[in-house]
Amino acid sequence: MPKIVDHDKQKQLVAEAVWRIIRHKGLEQASVRNVAEEAGLSAGSLRHYFNTQSELLAYSMELIGGKVKARAEQHANRPLLQGIQLVIEELLPLDAERRAEMEVWFAFTAKAMSDSKLNELSVQVYEEMQGTFRIMMNELVAMNLAKPELDVELEAERLHALIDGLAVHGITHPEQMPPQRMRDIAADYVQSLLQK
Amino acid sequence: MPKIVDHDKQKQLVAEAVWRIIRHKGLEQASVRNVAEEAGLSAGSLRHYFNTQSELLAYSMELIGGKVKARAEQHANRPLLQGIQLVIEELLPLDAERRAEMEVWFAFTAKAMSDSKLNELSVQVYEEMQGTFRIMMNELVAMNLAKPELDVELEAERLHALIDGLAVHGITHPEQMPPQRMRDIAADYVQSLLQK
Repeated sequence: MPKIVDHDKQKQLVAEAVWRIIRHKGLEQASVRNVAEEAGLSAGSLRHYFNTQSELLAYSMELIGGKVKARAEQHANRPLLQGIQLVIEELLPLDAERRAEMEVWFAFTAKAMSDSKLNELSVQVYEEMQGTFRIMMNELVAMNLAKPELDVELEAERLHALIDGLAVHGITHPEQMPPQRMRDIAADYVQSLLQK
Repeated sequence: MPKIVDHDKQKQLVAEAVWRIIRHKGLEQASVRNVAEEAGLSAGSLRHYFNTQSELLAYSMELIGGKVKARAEQHANRPLLQGIQLVIEELLPLDAERRAEMEVWFAFTAKAMSDSKLNELSVQVYEEMQGTFRIMMNELVAMNLAKPELDVELEAERLHALIDGLAVHGITHPEQMPPQRMRDIAADYVQSLLQK
């Protein structure tokens, strides 16, 4: 009987190995060879799934995107303002899991600047995020909660930049920017978008 | 007669070689060997200045910090609001020079997460930046320009995060976040800190 291999499970194990290496040794160490060793696979069987380091990283990034999206969708039925805060908090490094995701996202985004394959995916993630912030702004306007002069596109871009900036500070300078501070700065900013 | 070597000039050439490699090939390629080749020096004479990749990167980062600081100081005598906007614009990737600086800063910050020597310098840069934003907020308050409820420390941290977030978007997604848009989003935000 041929050995049955659960390919999805193996890919998941591989992605987790990539995350561990990026977090503990830096992204440049996430070669196909090192990842295979970390995942307890042969380099040959890893290449069955991923030919290059770029493909490996792109897959890890997509997996993170899927996890964040699934968590964000759980907040869809909340009252609008609470929902906005909860979705924003999924995008900030407030606990070990989200911190790991953000660290990989950050390393991935830095790498995407010199890797055209990763860059395509990075632009796609950016557009999706921008779309999420745009929906938040449109709903604030539709429900008559927004301040009168709110410019939907500009405010969506600004909140997007603020959240990514906080996330970068939270992972690179956790002592200066701890979780509760990120939460407060974001919540107070959302308040400033509302009518008085 | 012994050959006279201008050490400062050589270090500058080395730092520029580091920047070129990071921008075109990614930070993981900025090894002592590759940098020596790019700078037209032997690996041996490069090691006269820098023993490790970390030292090389730290030096390049310090050089960028010095350049940004020198440019920011030129705006010290401007009227406050104009001065704030000009200093903020020194921190955004609005032209080729600042874009190169930000790209190196971004790669460096990502790398600092897994390199304790670089991390020390990264924290120092963060604190200096935070100090700059704090001074801006304190001056707005001192000159009676700030909105009544302005929380100096929170607003300094938020503007810092917003500017770094815009810079990250500007270098990783220049089509989605072009220079004029960054400028406008920052200027409009500073306006929101003022009394009506």
